[in-house]
Order: sequence, then C-alpha cells, then structure tokens
Amino acid sequence: MREISIVSGNRHKVDELMPLAKAHGIRLKWINYSKVEIQADGISDIARAGGILAYAALGVPLIVEDTGIFISALKGFPGPYSAQAYKTIGLEGILTLLKGRKSRKAEFRTAICYAGDEDTVVFEGVVHGTIATRIRGGRDFGYDPIFIPEGHTKAYSEMELAEKNSASHRAAAFEKFAEYLSRK
Amino acid sequence: MREISIVSGNRHKVDELMPLAKAHGIRLKWINYSKVEIQADGISDIARAGGILAYAALGVPLIVEDTGIFISALKGFPGPYSAQAYKTIGLEGILTLLKGRKSRKAEFRTAICYAGDEDTVVFEGVVHGTIATRIRGGRDFGYDPIFIPEGHTKAYSEMELAEKNSASHRAAAFEKFAEYLSRK
Repeated sequence: MREISIVSGNRHKVDELMPLAKAHGIRLKWINYSKVEIQADGISDIARAGGILAYAALGVPLIVEDTGIFISALKGFPGPYSAQAYKTIGLEGILTLLKGRKSRKAEFRTAICYAGDEDTVVFEGVVHGTIATRIRGGRDFGYDPIFIPEGHTKAYSEMELAEKNSASHRAAAFEKFAEYLSRK
Repeated sequence: MREISIVSGNRHKVDELMPLAKAHGIRLKWINYSKVEIQADGISDIARAGGILAYAALGVPLIVEDTGIFISALKGFPGPYSAQAYKTIGLEGILTLLKGRKSRKAEFRTAICYAGDEDTVVFEGVVHGTIATRIRGGRDFGYDPIFIPEGHTKAYSEMELAEKNSASHRAAAFEKFAEYLSRK
C-alpha cells in the first residue's frame, strides 16, 4: 500500500478522504497542521502554494487540499474565503444575500495539490448545483446543508457519506490524483 | 529626505500615503506590484508576511500595508478579505447583511509593515465608527462610502482627502511608522 501524507487542520476533510484513499489502495497519513494559505482568486493557486511550502518544510510526499463554494449571483463569493464567510456571516448570511435572486447556481470546487520529490501537480474537482432556500438537516459540515448537487434533490448534508463521496467535488479531485499516482 | 519604497498594487492607497509621507520628510517610492498575501485572521500577520517576502525579493527598505474593515454584528466580516467582498457582494451586499441589525459598529484597520536591513516591524492604526444605512456620495474608494468614523457625521467618501487623512486608520498607522523611522 502506497503511503501519502495529508497536511490539513480540518478533520472533516480527512474523514471524507480516508475511505476514498483506501478504495484506491492508498494509505493516507494525517499530519494535523494547517498549511500556509495565500490569498488568490483560484483555489488551485492556493493549493499549489500550500503544497510547495508544506513539502519544503516536511520533505515527504504529501497532498494538501483547498475547497471553496462559488455562487454565481454573488460573482463567485465566498469562493477561496468560504471558511471565513462560514465563521462570520454563516449560512444564514449566504441565504440573506440570495433572497430575491433569480439564480441560485453555485459550484463547489476542490483542488488537491500533490507535492513529491519530482512533481508538484494540482487536480481539480467541480460539482455544479444550487443553493437551497433554507438550511437543510443532516450532517453539519460547512456548506453541505445548503448545497444541492445537480441531478439530486437532497443537500450534501442529507446524504450518507458514501453517497456524497459518489458525487462530490472533493471525491472528483481525489479520483484524478489517485489515477495520476497509479501511473507513477 | 529619507527614501522608502512602498510595494502595492493599489494606486488609491499610495495616493493617500504620499502627502502623509511628505509631511514627515519621507520620499515614498512606489513599486507597483501586489505583495504576496497570506490568509490570516489578523491584518498584522498578513502585512508582516508580505513585508518579509517583499524584502527578500527586492532587498531595499520598504513598507507594505494591509487594510480591512471589521463589522461587529458580522463577527468581524469581511475583515482580512475586504477587497474580495467588495468585488463580489459589494457595498450593497454589506448593507443587506446589516438590514435590521441593532449594531452597525465597525472598525477600519490598517497594518503597515516596515522591512529593512535589520528590522521587520508592524504598525497598526484603528478607527472606530459605524456603517451608514445607505451608500454615501463623494470619492469612491472601497468602503469609504459606507464608513462614518466616530465623532463625525460624514462618511470617509464625503471628506476631502486632507480631512480623511487627519482621522483615518491608514494615517494613524503611518504616523506610528514615521515616528519609528525618525528615531532610527
């Protein structure tokens, strides 16, 4: 089994990635440490910088991930700063900003950066969907209670983890990374 | 006259600092380049990292500045990511989020980092105030049209630059820096 470290201060993210990794024969070793995050419009740039700096510091093959939700009617807000918006204005604030808007379209994006001895590569996963009109129940993780992926009626929060992982932005990015690793 | 470079991609900020510098016998040389910005809750940390990296790259004594507006009822939102909130949800979005809130208190904060041969020092300026109930007229720069400093009835945007500079967060931070430089 291949061992790759994941540098993250967020247990939820690691919990989601663990079963995905296992299914691909990858042992993820959790390094519970917040990567350095730069400010940038694109999460790929944030993940890449974080991966490079983490690898420079730790010297072991590793991944870092960055995730954001981009709401069309709000010009991509909160995007790269989704965590800060969640902690401050919260999901209620997002719903307030969307009141009366025609479009509730959003994209959930994850970028995973692999940094190893030779390569630094970024893999992106995107899921299109809509913002719910109220906060839905279920697992309470980030924007999951208000994001309904395209082709579904349930919010992410209302799905079992396995169901979310069969259709999520984070899973899509990880699949690409696993595919890359298998060819290495 | 002492010469110090300022690294910034924002002409408005430089325009505000120029007369302040001149009044203190400092010649500010503008390097029109966006400093590296990390993600952090405090603008001092962002300015410090930006100053260190800019000095490492350029090797001349310089300042960088970082500014944010922290709204109490929104738990400090938008804070360090004020520029992104401005570009996406805009001032209208801020007013929407504050609709019906009792408190409209806010703080405008600037951190200026000086990085030179021996020292890296950060100076902070804070101005308390309130968020206006509508967008005011005048000079259109960032949050100036909705921020009314304590003890005033006009928003920053409605003041002449000299008047704003006599009471602003940016000026307060610069005063501290100029005082430090004069003792060097």
